[in-house]
Order: sequence, then C-alpha cells, then structure tokens
Amino acid sequence: MSKLSISHSEGIATVSINNPPSNVITSDLINEVNAFVLSLKYDRDTKIVVFKSLHPLFFLAHLDLHVINGTTAGQAASIEFNHMITNIKAMKQLSVAVVDGVARGGGDEFVMACDLAYATENAAFAQPEIHVNIPTGGQGAVQYARRMGKNKALQALLLGNDFTAQQAEALNIITQYVPKSEMDEFLAQVLGVIAQLEIRNILMYKEIIAASIIDEDAGAELELRYFLERAKENKTQAIIDAFIKHGGQTDREAKDIQGIFVDTAAELAKSFNG
Amino acid sequence: MSKLSISHSEGIATVSINNPPSNVITSDLINEVNAFVLSLKYDRDTKIVVFKSLHPLFFLAHLDLHVINGTTAGQAASIEFNHMITNIKAMKQLSVAVVDGVARGGGDEFVMACDLAYATENAAFAQPEIHVNIPTGGQGAVQYARRMGKNKALQALLLGNDFTAQQAEALNIITQYVPKSEMDEFLAQVLGVIAQLEIRNILMYKEIIAASIIDEDAGAELELRYFLERAKENKTQAIIDAFIKHGGQTDREAKDIQGIFVDTAAELAKSFNG
Amino acid sequence: MSKLSISHSEGIATVSINNPPSNVITSDLINEVNAFVLSLKYDRDTKIVVFKSLHPLFFLAHLDLHVINGTTAGQAASIEFNHMITNIKAMKQLSVAVVDGVARGGGDEFVMACDLAYATENAAFAQPEIHVNIPTGGQGAVQYARRMGKNKALQALLLGNDFTAQQAEALNIITQYVPKSEMDEFLAQVLGVIAQLEIRNILMYKEIIAASIIDEDAGAELELRYFLERAKENKTQAIIDAFIKHGGQTDREAKDIQGIFVDTAAELAKSFNG
Repeated sequence: MSKLSISHSEGIATVSINNPPSNVITSDLINEVNAFVLSLKYDRDTKIVVFKSLHPLFFLAHLDLHVINGTTAGQAASIEFNHMITNIKAMKQLSVAVVDGVARGGGDEFVMACDLAYATENAAFAQPEIHVNIPTGGQGAVQYARRMGKNKALQALLLGNDFTAQQAEALNIITQYVPKSEMDEFLAQVLGVIAQLEIRNILMYKEIIAASIIDEDAGAELELRYFLERAKENKTQAIIDAFIKHGGQTDREAKDIQGIFVDTAAELAKSFNG
Repeated sequence: MSKLSISHSEGIATVSINNPPSNVITSDLINEVNAFVLSLKYDRDTKIVVFKSLHPLFFLAHLDLHVINGTTAGQAASIEFNHMITNIKAMKQLSVAVVDGVARGGGDEFVMACDLAYATENAAFAQPEIHVNIPTGGQGAVQYARRMGKNKALQALLLGNDFTAQQAEALNIITQYVPKSEMDEFLAQVLGVIAQLEIRNILMYKEIIAASIIDEDAGAELELRYFLERAKENKTQAIIDAFIKHGGQTDREAKDIQGIFVDTAAELAKSFNG
Repeated sequence: MSKLSISHSEGIATVSINNPPSNVITSDLINEVNAFVLSLKYDRDTKIVVFKSLHPLFFLAHLDLHVINGTTAGQAASIEFNHMITNIKAMKQLSVAVVDGVARGGGDEFVMACDLAYATENAAFAQPEIHVNIPTGGQGAVQYARRMGKNKALQALLLGNDFTAQQAEALNIITQYVPKSEMDEFLAQVLGVIAQLEIRNILMYKEIIAASIIDEDAGAELELRYFLERAKENKTQAIIDAFIKHGGQTDREAKDIQGIFVDTAAELAKSFNG
C-alpha cells in the first residue's frame, strides 16, 4: 500500500494518507482504503482507527474529478467511492478523523463517515458539488440533512460554502474543534481512555445508538437487554466491588469520580497480578 | 414515604429527594418514586411535578451498584429502575427536574426522563457506565443519541465524562442553565405561567410533540384536528373577544403582547365574577 | 392582488406583504398567497421566492382571530390557512422569508414553512396560541418538536414566549440571524449564488433532504442515483474540464476555490459565446 502509511500502537491504528500532489480521492486511494477497512473485519487487536493526512493543505481534497463522467470506468469508480463511505460507516472499530486541512466534497463525506472527527483552525469543510452540476455522492447531503436540519442543510448544499472547524462543530459535521497546538495532547487523553475499553463495548454503543436514532423504543429495549446481560458478568462484579471499596457511593464521587476510577483500576491490576 | 417529601401548592407538587448518605437510587427510592408517579394518574389537581434533591452534593448519584448483578433480586431491581424511567416519561403532568448537584448514570437518566430540566453551576451530568462494564440502563444512550446526534453521543458514552449545565444545555441533556442565584425567581416565573394552563393543554402538546418526532405528517394532522376542535369552544371565543378588546390585532401586540394578555385575564376574571 | 406586491428580477420573485393595519393573516391574504404559490407550479422562470413585509412592526402578526371559531366559515378559513402552510412547503422554488418584525403564531409558522429564513434584530418569533385555548394550527408545534427537540419545544409552546433572531437561529426556527444593516448585501450575495443554479438543482436537493430525514438509507440511495445520472451529462464534463484547466485538483483549490469557480464560469461563458 503506497498511499496509506499505517502504524499500530496499543490498539490504535494510525492511517496517514498521502496521495500527491493534492490528496485527491483517486481510484487507487479508494481501493487501498477499502482493502484496509475490510481487513479490519477480522482484526481482534485494533480498537481505534485514526485517519490523518500528510498533506500540508488538504485532509482530502475531494473525489477525483476524472471519474465523474458517464464512462463505465467512471461510474464504477464513483460507486466504489460510495462503497468506501458505507464501509467506513460499518467498521466495528472506532473510526476517528483528525482534520488539519481542507475537506471538501468526498473529503467532507469521508470525515462524516467516521464515528468521531476533530479538526483544527486549518480545517475547512464544504459540499460544493452543485456548482459542478452534480449532487453529493457519498452521503454528504444525507448527513447534512440529518445533522443540521433541513434548512441549514439546504443553504449549505446550494451555496457550497466553506465552514471552519468551530462552525462545523456547531453544525454537527465534526465532533469537536481542537486547536492544533492542543491536538496531540487531546488525542492522547481521549483515545487513551477509549483504548482501554474492550472493542465489544464500542460496538455495543454503536449498535444502541443506531437503533435509537431509528426508533426510540427499540433502542431502549436493546439497551436494557445489554444492561441485564452485562450486569451478570464476573468482570462487572469485580469492578463494582473495587469501586465501592475506594469510595464509590460516597461523597467522594461528587468531586473525584476520576480518582475512584484510578484507584479501582489499580486495585483490579493488583488482584489480577497477585 | 420516607425518602421523598412532597408538598403541594397551586397545582404544583414539589418532590424533595433525600436518600442518605449520597442520594443513590436504591430499590427503596425506586419503589417510592414509582408509587408516587403512578398515584398521579388519577390526580386531577396536580399539573406540575418538580423534582429536587435535599443533598448538598448530589441530585441523584446513580443507580445503586448493589443491584447491578446477576441475582434475581438485582435483575428485578434493575428492571424496576428502568420502569421508573418509563413511568416518569409517561406522566400526564409536566415533570421538571431542578438540578443543583451531580447527576450521573441513573441520575442523568432521571433528569432526561423529565419533560423539562433546569440546572445550576453546581450540576454535573454524565453516563460513565461503560467503565463499570455495563451500558446505560435507563435510556441514557438512547437519549444521548436522539438529543446530541450519533457522534457526540458516542464520544460522551465512551468517555463517560462530566458535562456542566451550560454544556448540557447545548447538548440538549437539559432545557436550560440557570444560575443558582436566579433559580427560585426563574422557577416562580416559568411554573407560574404553566400552572395557569389546564392540564389537558400540557397533555395535548406532549401528544403532538411525540407524534411529530416520529412522523411529521402524522403530527401535523393531529395538531390540525386539535386546533379545529378547540376553536369551537366557548372559552376560546371569550378569550379572543377580550384579547381583541384590549388591543389584539393592533400594533400594541408588537411590543406589548404580555400587557394584552394581562388585561385579557383581568377582563375574563371580571366577567366570571360579575 | 392587493395585499401582495410582486416584483421579478433574474429568477427571483420578491413578494412584499401589506395587509393593514397590522399584517394579520386574514382570509383574503391567505387566498392571495395560495393563488400565487399555486401559480408557481408551472412557472419556469422563477427559481427563488422571497417573502418580505411592508409593515414597520410586523412580518405577519398571526392568523386572524376572527376565523378561530366553530362557524363553518371560520373552520374553512382555518383549513385554508393550514393548506397555505403545506402549499408553501411543497413549492418547487426556493422559498425565503426575510423577517424584520414580529412573527407570532401563524406568522412564525409561515416563516418555518419557507426553505430558508433570515431575520434581523427587529424580529420576534413565538407560538403563544395556548394562552388563547388553542394549539398551533399551521405546524408550529410540529416544527418546534422537530427543530429544537422535545424538551425545548414543550417549554416554548407552554410559555409562548418571544425569541430573538439569535435565539431563533440557535433553535433552528430560522436559518440565520443577519443584522438589518447587512441584510441587503447578504441577500444579494446568497441569492445571487443560488439564482445561478438551475431550478432542478434546488428541487433535487430538497428531495434528497426530505428523503434523508425520514430514512438515512433511502436518502443515500436516492443521492447516489442522482449522482450517477448527473455525472453522465455533457454539462458536467464541460464544467469539470474548465475547472481543472484553471487549477482544480491543485493546491490552488485549498485557499482559492472561489477564484477557480470564477475562472471556470468565465471560460464556459467564452466557449458558449465563441
């Protein structure tokens, strides 16, 4: 794989995208991303996948304009691009886009296909397709509609204007704006917490959330079923016992629940090693 | 009932929760809340139920960890807790949580089960269950998904981090942040307006809103049906006549519609007494 | 038509509403709006319809209180009002409300029926119907529920309080707050961009958005179908060729995509004239 450099560390795969000269989403890149994402299906070690760009200006510019045409090859490549979006959305791992440059069109759609997205002051997000006589092709309009409501979505799609990271956060295009100077520390903290979870926990919450968005009652039923099953596990009892031993269910919780969790983890590590 | 002190005044029941030492949601408290909420079904005088805490630090800490296990009693208590959430959601009265302390896990779910929620600078909201090997069990994940969207919900559920009242307002966990120093006056004003409505009005709008969330067209149809029925009532005509007499449909409305409503109420009280 | 003055310019119809003394939504006005909106069905020149008010205080005060009653005429007029709302929502043109005054009840519902809404510091939005013993009758409660969520909607409908333009933007009642001093320039810029699109583009995005709100997967399928069809058009190829010629898919895009679009348009105009 030449356009993706992938490194692994403590359950986190970091995928750096490099497709010169302008990080356009070409067929080659689509094929590499699809191959990588599909390979994760049977990966038991990777919990989190972080997508970054090595380009100084672009996260991902957009879908290669050379495939947007009526040729058999063009139509097939466009469909592969669309599949890439649905493949990313279907990942069992937590997918995270870290955006420090421009993400328009398919680049914006790539970002929204990820579970979480963090972006800096160098980021820009847009769906300007309509000015090239086409609609969005990777769920851009779908996601805008569902994330910002009919009216703001329609305005954004007809204008095709750029949004800053702060605007994108307010409009739910991304999860959070993070200044570039704080991004590394922010990611270390957030991903450090999540990487300690079992991957089935990530999956469970993705599943409950997806069900709840479609049907509130169905989501509630699924959630309760998981709750009752999980309550029965020995692991749950071990954590709860240690948590209570270190101040759970007392006033210590009010101001120092993190401290209780730290002591709980230490207690559990001790029992495990002892 | 020993954990709930309930006072009644002008259609408003104020429920103060006191379950020492840390306002944990124990089986006893669940049973008392369920009994009280179910007793309201045939209550014709109570329009609004306000839930407060007497604890200096906690609104409600969370579900009692001693019932989160595989025992018959534990599973039954967890289900009763879940029923408490659905019972609160199904109340015909307007339910209002006033939060001046920590509300995590089941406490946060209790807050979201209420129709309205106001919180101070002392409040904290979180769903940290995943760090105890369980998902939320009282619709916490369901509500997060529907209120803040997939991405922000997933981040909040995997991190389990606290939110301030201002953050909780922005994420639709609560209705509004209100500084503690202004809370009493704020509640007197807001609940004073709502307590003057008939309880069927509260119910009608809850019903239209619930229908509209599921299906826009069905909500619109239900709304129009209610509108046409209500337009026929003598009460409607009496209010409209007094409203017009005092400046309704003139420029006075633009800057002083509240004054017209005050004059209208005085006019109606006079006719009623006269 | 005496209550609407309509001017046409470059694909934009500007409708100025003038119904003295207080821009109440009377049966006459409803009939004029309905006739105009239905006439647009076969209009091939008008892409955008802008609704403004000529009244110094009111955008639209609310539905005429004289039709809110149990008479046959009153009920028929109320239903016509409701149809006006659904007719506006069903327009193929882009509908835009420009609000520089009070819009309560039916006025607020008129604003929310439009695709886009911009409002100044003189605007006020409210659904105070419940204080006249009726619910909203033009999808006010439906729209509040879907735009601001159950809790904030219920509070707003039971209180009936005014919202400023900034608050209305945050609650998705309108698209954007624009200071009055900047409104003309803002509209010229925004509508200037949109008026250059074909009307089928506006329709296509309205359709994809409507489908996506109801069902994410159905929206995605529809979007992809449109994308593949549009990719085949000669117009698409001509724009893409000119776009690439002027720096598309290079680093120029990062900071100057607008410049590329300007050069692209000039190139296309040249070929067309040449």
